[in-house]
Amino acid sequence: MKQINQAIEKILDELLENGKIGALSEVLITMNPADAGIYLNNIPEDALDQVFTKISSTNAGLLFVELDFPKQENLVTFMDDDQLREMLDNMFIDDVSALVRDLPEAKAERVRNLLDPDTASQLDMVMSFPEESIGNIMNTEFLSLKPTMTIADAIASIRSSSGMEKETVNICYVTDRFGRLAGSIPLRTLVTARDEKIKISQLMDSRPVAVNVTDDQEAVSHVFRKYDLTVIPVVDKQYRLVGITTVDDAIDVIETEATEDMQKMAAIIPTETPYLKTPVFRIWLNRIPWLLVLMIGATFTAKVITSFENALSSCVILTAFIPMLMDTAGNAGSQSSVTIVRGLALGELTLRDWYKVMWKEVRVALMCGVVLIVCNFAKLMLLDRVTSTVAMTVCFALFLAVVISKMIGSFLPILIGSIGLDPAVMAGPILTTIVDALTLLIYFTVATHLLGL
Amino acid sequence: MKQINQAIEKILDELLENGKIGALSEVLITMNPADAGIYLNNIPEDALDQVFTKISSTNAGLLFVELDFPKQENLVTFMDDDQLREMLDNMFIDDVSALVRDLPEAKAERVRNLLDPDTASQLDMVMSFPEESIGNIMNTEFLSLKPTMTIADAIASIRSSSGMEKETVNICYVTDRFGRLAGSIPLRTLVTARDEKIKISQLMDSRPVAVNVTDDQEAVSHVFRKYDLTVIPVVDKQYRLVGITTVDDAIDVIETEATEDMQKMAAIIPTETPYLKTPVFRIWLNRIPWLLVLMIGATFTAKVITSFENALSSCVILTAFIPMLMDTAGNAGSQSSVTIVRGLALGELTLRDWYKVMWKEVRVALMCGVVLIVCNFAKLMLLDRVTSTVAMTVCFALFLAVVISKMIGSFLPILIGSIGLDPAVMAGPILTTIVDALTLLIYFTVATHLLGL
Repeated sequence: MKQINQAIEKILDELLENGKIGALSEVLITMNPADAGIYLNNIPEDALDQVFTKISSTNAGLLFVELDFPKQENLVTFMDDDQLREMLDNMFIDDVSALVRDLPEAKAERVRNLLDPDTASQLDMVMSFPEESIGNIMNTEFLSLKPTMTIADAIASIRSSSGMEKETVNICYVTDRFGRLAGSIPLRTLVTARDEKIKISQLMDSRPVAVNVTDDQEAVSHVFRKYDLTVIPVVDKQYRLVGITTVDDAIDVIETEATEDMQKMAAIIPTETPYLKTPVFRIWLNRIPWLLVLMIGATFTAKVITSFENALSSCVILTAFIPMLMDTAGNAGSQSSVTIVRGLALGELTLRDWYKVMWKEVRVALMCGVVLIVCNFAKLMLLDRVTSTVAMTVCFALFLAVVISKMIGSFLPILIGSIGLDPAVMAGPILTTIVDALTLLIYFTVATHLLGL
Repeated sequence: MKQINQAIEKILDELLENGKIGALSEVLITMNPADAGIYLNNIPEDALDQVFTKISSTNAGLLFVELDFPKQENLVTFMDDDQLREMLDNMFIDDVSALVRDLPEAKAERVRNLLDPDTASQLDMVMSFPEESIGNIMNTEFLSLKPTMTIADAIASIRSSSGMEKETVNICYVTDRFGRLAGSIPLRTLVTARDEKIKISQLMDSRPVAVNVTDDQEAVSHVFRKYDLTVIPVVDKQYRLVGITTVDDAIDVIETEATEDMQKMAAIIPTETPYLKTPVFRIWLNRIPWLLVLMIGATFTAKVITSFENALSSCVILTAFIPMLMDTAGNAGSQSSVTIVRGLALGELTLRDWYKVMWKEVRVALMCGVVLIVCNFAKLMLLDRVTSTVAMTVCFALFLAVVISKMIGSFLPILIGSIGLDPAVMAGPILTTIVDALTLLIYFTVATHLLGL
């Protein structure tokens, strides 16, 4: 669980136990909202409600966004219209839209009706974009300068809008008379300019990196990483500036996507809730479907084995190497698939690189295969002391299984990606299930031929 | 492979083919350095050398940091002392230290000797910190204000240092007379302050979030995420401000750590080189060791099977369910281990939470086990039409294997973490190998008892 300073936590706990909610609230608002949020997420509901009646609407807005969603929902239900309206006024549009998206319809409607008309229409715009698009998490409050302004005009304009969010002014965006993005200029450049009469158009970067409002959030996070940016302007199809997106959202996207990919690779239905806050039933629900599907999927391996039952019973020693073959082929396949899936996720690879990938993987597979069979043959002959025909059977099957698994492991994610599905599901247990069945088929086919079973 | 605009690429290619390196260089320096870097990473070495002789040292510094390391090393060798010195003067200390760290000793020494004494001593300081510490990637060029300065003084001080890096002034840090971090103040606050006579101490945040110079890079990336920051001041043991670290480095750390964890989970020796740029031999080197180790590790499963050879030959149908049991137990274990490993990596879990984890996992494991055996029993009886004793044997073994795998899958990463190793290595094939052997032991033990073999 995320931690806050233990000394402070003790003080807060004492105030809470003694019912001194007023004093508790005062301490909380001096703390960093992120820390205060961690504490508030772990106190009883009625105490939380009381804290929110004690604090100003500005502080309420700051703390509310740090709470887990169930706490937020309860607070929304608890607050009266005035209190809720004032708090919403102090929240950014991306936080409001995240809340509205998660709330049940009736409560979402109440929140929307409490917004001033201007914010409500901004909310509608933000919520009209596809769920995974950057438009959905962008900020629509930003300051735009005009190219014809002087430095002095620009600074005056920034001063007159000083209530706005901090991120929006470290870099100022410049728009033309149609509202189209015309350039960007760092606040630092404005401050350090030698002559206040210089026009913005002379100092601005007239080709700032921008993203489209419908761009995928994950793609935008790559843009942040590629250009080392902290803010990116968001434009619509007509190149009009409609919002800005900040790097802290990109970090969340990057960590969430990596977590989701790992969960998919481990046969878990992706969830964003931190482990300790997820109820046991929910964890079970996220895990049991794939376990069941994959268990049923293993019917194929059982079928393969039973159809070669006679061969097996005449040479039981063959059974001993089934796990080794399945695991080695599975590992070989996972190495390839995880490499490809991660390369695609990081944007280091595109689906169009498929032939480069396959050519690389063929060579790696052959090299791995050779080393594995040489070592395995030595082990089989010297340690396990099987007959040379059995050793050759096992090694020949191993070689074929490793090479084929690596081919499938690299090709399947690309195939799945090219039909628009997430390659990550192919890097995990589905691949293993396919590889298992194939490995057994290869093994028994080789065995029946070489051993004449 | 990372892409740049194809139209621009075509123009650049034409200039390159016609040997117009001067014109090529001129186009490149108008581009975003990140894009120019992508292009330069893919042109022949001698053309790259020529480009760097044509451009100014400022642009050389900007473009150099975007190149892959082998290209950087070649350029360092190619450049004469004057050229190299000027370029180094235009690079940030964290980029210089990254270069020096990767270069072979003789070349690193040459670079160090070309630095001015001040930069050289900064370099020595940065390189004295542990490899994974934030001190190692922090930036030592920053502007510090004094609490007694007025707003006007502060702005004058920023103007007089306008050659400095941009990131350092969006938030200005305030130090006391001992150089200790005393506060922070956003540039925006300075610009929008109503009265230029106000002292910095009155407007600054006197308790900014700071990290220690020896803190782990991954831990610092969590601080960025937790507090939604773009810059964090770095202090030493005496709380003196020694550097700043920016969010773009944190993003790199987050993505690299996630990639490394995935590679470990997939039995690959971690590498940072993008797939398409890694030679086949290197890929093979990163993959073959674990394949070999795990193949040899599978000797245990073979031993288990051969020691129950008699039982197996008297009831060959049992063999058919070996893959299903191994895979299901393996999947169940991976689900737990990946969840725990990711929770630890994201800081959502700490090693001290182990009993909460185990208690949660026991319940999830029992619930998963029950559902799996109910479905499996039905399938065995209705579809596979095995005897009820065989069905009971398989199901009983399945239940035990799933529960034990989940226990091991959640406990092993915590155990490994608590002795200071990386939990991620336990979330992958090592776990599978352990689980496989255990599952077979359970299966055959149950079988010998229930079937009286």
